[in-house]
Amino acid sequence: MNLTNASVGLVAPEIYRHEAPFVLQCGVTLPSYELVYETYGTLNNEATNAILICHALSGHHHAAGVHTEEDVKPGWWDSCIGPGKPIDTNLYFVVSLNNIGGCHGSTGPRSKNPKTGQAYGPEFPTVLVRDWVATQAHLADHLGIRQFAAIVGGSLGGMQAMQWAIDFPDRIRTAIVIASAAKLSAQNIAFNEIARQAITSDPNFFAGRYAENESNPDQGLMLARMIGHVTYLSDDGMREKFGRELKSGNPQKGDDVEFQVESYLHHQGRSFSQVFDANTYVLMTKALDFYDPASEHNNDLATVLKDVSARFLVVSFTSDWRFSVERSQEIVNALVAAGKNVATAIIESEHGHDSFLLPIPRYFDVLNAYLGHLYEELDPKVSSS
Amino acid sequence: MNLTNASVGLVAPEIYRHEAPFVLQCGVTLPSYELVYETYGTLNNEATNAILICHALSGHHHAAGVHTEEDVKPGWWDSCIGPGKPIDTNLYFVVSLNNIGGCHGSTGPRSKNPKTGQAYGPEFPTVLVRDWVATQAHLADHLGIRQFAAIVGGSLGGMQAMQWAIDFPDRIRTAIVIASAAKLSAQNIAFNEIARQAITSDPNFFAGRYAENESNPDQGLMLARMIGHVTYLSDDGMREKFGRELKSGNPQKGDDVEFQVESYLHHQGRSFSQVFDANTYVLMTKALDFYDPASEHNNDLATVLKDVSARFLVVSFTSDWRFSVERSQEIVNALVAAGKNVATAIIESEHGHDSFLLPIPRYFDVLNAYLGHLYEELDPKVSSS
Repeated sequence: MNLTNASVGLVAPEIYRHEAPFVLQCGVTLPSYELVYETYGTLNNEATNAILICHALSGHHHAAGVHTEEDVKPGWWDSCIGPGKPIDTNLYFVVSLNNIGGCHGSTGPRSKNPKTGQAYGPEFPTVLVRDWVATQAHLADHLGIRQFAAIVGGSLGGMQAMQWAIDFPDRIRTAIVIASAAKLSAQNIAFNEIARQAITSDPNFFAGRYAENESNPDQGLMLARMIGHVTYLSDDGMREKFGRELKSGNPQKGDDVEFQVESYLHHQGRSFSQVFDANTYVLMTKALDFYDPASEHNNDLATVLKDVSARFLVVSFTSDWRFSVERSQEIVNALVAAGKNVATAIIESEHGHDSFLLPIPRYFDVLNAYLGHLYEELDPKVSSS
Repeated sequence: MNLTNASVGLVAPEIYRHEAPFVLQCGVTLPSYELVYETYGTLNNEATNAILICHALSGHHHAAGVHTEEDVKPGWWDSCIGPGKPIDTNLYFVVSLNNIGGCHGSTGPRSKNPKTGQAYGPEFPTVLVRDWVATQAHLADHLGIRQFAAIVGGSLGGMQAMQWAIDFPDRIRTAIVIASAAKLSAQNIAFNEIARQAITSDPNFFAGRYAENESNPDQGLMLARMIGHVTYLSDDGMREKFGRELKSGNPQKGDDVEFQVESYLHHQGRSFSQVFDANTYVLMTKALDFYDPASEHNNDLATVLKDVSARFLVVSFTSDWRFSVERSQEIVNALVAAGKNVATAIIESEHGHDSFLLPIPRYFDVLNAYLGHLYEELDPKVSSS
């Protein structure tokens, strides 16, 4: 495989309309729903070469390529998905969607509630990882994909890949779980709750009815994003990137000082608050907090995984302290205890949780090798050549 | 020394009034100022047995004992200060103050600005660690203490102890620097800035004029404290204390769920917002961010410490990730490079930055031994017996 900077080029989102009622885990029924998704590459005749990309907290369907020729910013995982890239669109048919509850086109808090004729807003029901997996299976049916060659996700996306292996053992060949966990720690829940508090206590939140009040909790979203950013980086990574460099002012003189790291976070927070929906942020962080497949099995993850038939690749990063190497090793240990096929890679990186989005050579080598071998199994022409 | 649960008992705060003008590092002059302080134990005739306690971000003068017989909550370091305790009031005369800029009785944002007749509020000038050290020296003069046997502080308090050794080499015999750093990292500055943003963006902050508006930025202070709490604990410590225990609701049913860790943080945040002053919080976090004695010496801390004559004890805790062992080792390395006398202890603890406030046996043994040996030097009767 030749790793180049080639891109999938121009892509256009599509919509899947699920016209039948869908009962969520919480008991609420969506009378119908829509998923916005993109695909890259070509599905082979046997429909065996599909890879599903599951997005994380603030992700969406636009993972690769550009929407217009003038588009300066490609999809969020363009470094990894494309011709000759680790998720190679010359070999694979890649599906990337926005999950329900999201704010990028799929049915979510910004969608109209058919019961009231108004936007759902804060009344959008609680969505769990299992619900996402079920809707992704509907999308697979729609696309004629009986079994995914791989389902890949980082962070919250990794939880979806794992849940696929549990809920649809015969529909997933390999699960690639990156910088994820089988459940959040108290510290992670605490950071998510602080972010939610920042949003919901913003007076412009209006109990989630900001749109009707022609308002937006910009400040709360900005704070939530700043907390996310700091905790997704590592202490060392931030030291290298920002140090104690000043943007303005002299601290020894009592000036109004701004450190570079502050300036960066302000900018990131403000940009995010202009594009992301606050109700979606609250909903997505709760899905993260609530994920805990072992909770109904005496906290024994190996029991939950006993009927899994997918192979697993579990990847973690040394400086990731929100989804640490130890959390990934818990998944590996449970798979081993359940007698499953699992490979694992611990990647040296100083970029914290953000590492899973970065083109770190050894990380990409691992994905490339794993998916290359997988492809040989799928395509008899390759393996016999 | 006999470690018991004995207390210094009933104590009463006193006020030191500095009637002369005091020029702050930022150039602003306070026409006068007041310090509220407490003392425990007895100053010996030679005034050689005094220990100064420097408080951290949210600390104050009330470090030991109780204010009334009914007082259920003793001072913030009562576990460490008292008869037979590591900072032994049978041997030492202990001085503990609230720094200027504080909100517990010393001149600060809640004090009246003589120029305007109104509270300083947000116009209280920038205060740096050096300013605190200078005012503490005035207090020492007032108390007849030429040289402290020891100056002890954790976190921001440790910066004050270090700065004493730099600014007044002949007035400090030993500096005990606990869970501190010679400068904050970008990550630490980022967390402080998020806390400040939470406070200053609260609409009840009124640009720092909340008191005049009969208001208080409760929500912002609550968020700031929640961020502090989470980052002062460790992931492992929180797992042990809270795990994923639920306070209410079933996450699998879409209930309004509260995890124990959330309930705890809400409670801590609300309590704090009722007692702490928002302008003080902003001011104190800036003093933390701005501390960097090496910045004017080519970032060479050893050069800054070259005229220090105090001995140092530098203590850090294994799970403290905001003031990590590495930051303490930077101080130790600079002292070694400068040819100074330094002892260091790295204490195993899973309680994160909060460890410095906890009665961890090895930590207290180290303090006890160090201060015990120090006392023998001070008191010829002891060393010859």
